[in-house]
Amino acid sequence: MFNRVAIIGLGLIGGSIGLALHSAKAAREIVGYDMGRGVSERAFALGAIDRSCNSLADVVQEAEFVVLATPVGAMRMLLKEIGPFVLPGAVVTDVASTKVQVLAWAEEFLPSSVLFVGGHPMTGKEVSGVEAADATLFHNCIYCLTPTTHTEQAALNKVVAFVEILNARIHYLQPVEHDKQVAYVSHLPFIASVAIMTTVADDDTWSEASLLAANGFRDMSRLAGGNPEMYRDICMTNTAPIVERLDAFINTMEKIRNAISHKDKNLTDIFSKAQQLRLQWLISRDSPGNNNTP
Amino acid sequence: MFNRVAIIGLGLIGGSIGLALHSAKAAREIVGYDMGRGVSERAFALGAIDRSCNSLADVVQEAEFVVLATPVGAMRMLLKEIGPFVLPGAVVTDVASTKVQVLAWAEEFLPSSVLFVGGHPMTGKEVSGVEAADATLFHNCIYCLTPTTHTEQAALNKVVAFVEILNARIHYLQPVEHDKQVAYVSHLPFIASVAIMTTVADDDTWSEASLLAANGFRDMSRLAGGNPEMYRDICMTNTAPIVERLDAFINTMEKIRNAISHKDKNLTDIFSKAQQLRLQWLISRDSPGNNNTP
Repeated sequence: MFNRVAIIGLGLIGGSIGLALHSAKAAREIVGYDMGRGVSERAFALGAIDRSCNSLADVVQEAEFVVLATPVGAMRMLLKEIGPFVLPGAVVTDVASTKVQVLAWAEEFLPSSVLFVGGHPMTGKEVSGVEAADATLFHNCIYCLTPTTHTEQAALNKVVAFVEILNARIHYLQPVEHDKQVAYVSHLPFIASVAIMTTVADDDTWSEASLLAANGFRDMSRLAGGNPEMYRDICMTNTAPIVERLDAFINTMEKIRNAISHKDKNLTDIFSKAQQLRLQWLISRDSPGNNNTP
Repeated sequence: MFNRVAIIGLGLIGGSIGLALHSAKAAREIVGYDMGRGVSERAFALGAIDRSCNSLADVVQEAEFVVLATPVGAMRMLLKEIGPFVLPGAVVTDVASTKVQVLAWAEEFLPSSVLFVGGHPMTGKEVSGVEAADATLFHNCIYCLTPTTHTEQAALNKVVAFVEILNARIHYLQPVEHDKQVAYVSHLPFIASVAIMTTVADDDTWSEASLLAANGFRDMSRLAGGNPEMYRDICMTNTAPIVERLDAFINTMEKIRNAISHKDKNLTDIFSKAQQLRLQWLISRDSPGNNNTP
């Protein structure tokens, strides 16, 4: 059981963490802070935190475990601000979408007496905000942890206990590997969705063509509805892996474009391969035990 | 009320048409044909047709209304085969995904006494086959009709009556415009989905990275699970509009790629624009009366 847990950022993720800790009676006190007007009060009213604090200095004071639950764009400022106030020996973890840059900022701004372990839960909802928070949001989701060779075992143990309270499945990987892999499975799909929405809708024919847009278009444009600032910050903190993956994707698009243009007989093979890869992924995703150990 | 309606191709679409006509008591007799082994029998057992025929010649015999409900790849052979047997004065319509090429084949292979009107219902399901057929599949869906200056009013009236029986919303457009617009909202999204699935999964890191693939990746790869032969035929019959759209899409991807690579301040604007376009589409889609008249 934790003594005092501080949650900074009380949106969907931070609020859900508070609710999950509460429902597991895992902390003697949960204190929270959010820059947004009235957010802490709503988090308190919803039972996500026991007490709302008015400053970053206040919220980390005497907390043995600090969760940074803001988008990656806020992390630099946040780590810089809390650095002087975090308790020596406290463990700090985050939930941001990219890890290499966050770890560098933690190294830069937290005193060496504070132990940082990077994290990233692979979960979410269509809706954001503390009103959408849910104690079961993390149930069975993959929760990335990116300990490094500097990470102390005692700090890691605390973060492992925390993830287990959330009922998530721990997945260990190197920060660099994490950032590469999310560029593949998360950032590339977002950018492709933006490009589809823009290419199709930024055209004179769109008012007519939009009538023909059905479920396929709906799915392929959904990610384009995501928060622009959050994705800008993701692109700013994960630039090289994203650009590398976009180049590979553009290359694949050009190959398919040429196969279509030349009415290439291999076109069926290209489409069949994608169909098989998709099917294999669905099967492996739904099979039990696709987890790893530290 | 129709006298005898022939449905050729008894999959999800053809089967659903049969069920809808039956449930509206809109035809004295519905006859059906499918090349697939046992398909006609299952369609009969499910109540989609009154009688199964053993040949294309048989099924169109004495039918005043013929629905070609096969993928576009089968249309050329089908029109060629039924040409000599269709009743003079009969009306033929199709449901294929592309229209210019189908109209050219109809012109080539059907006698001038037979009246052809191209159609394309914008509906579907994850699953295919007559077992998935559903009398309400077309309820409120957009149903494209592509009459030309040659189309006789009497023939068009019959097709309009047919679509109204299905409870679909008629959308008139030129065949060339139809093919351009589906290249935008349907074929480009499919190819982008194939490229995402292939780029991401055809890589050494996939077995690990796949663990991080969540709902965003699931949505963006869903279309890649579509039938390869059907999409090959779509690409073969709608080549120029698809290639043009792919070029525009690749161009947009390159612009975004460069903005990310240069950590361009406009990145937020690009993402915000896509977010707004998506929101506007959702609003206009859900507003009543987004229909047109002939």
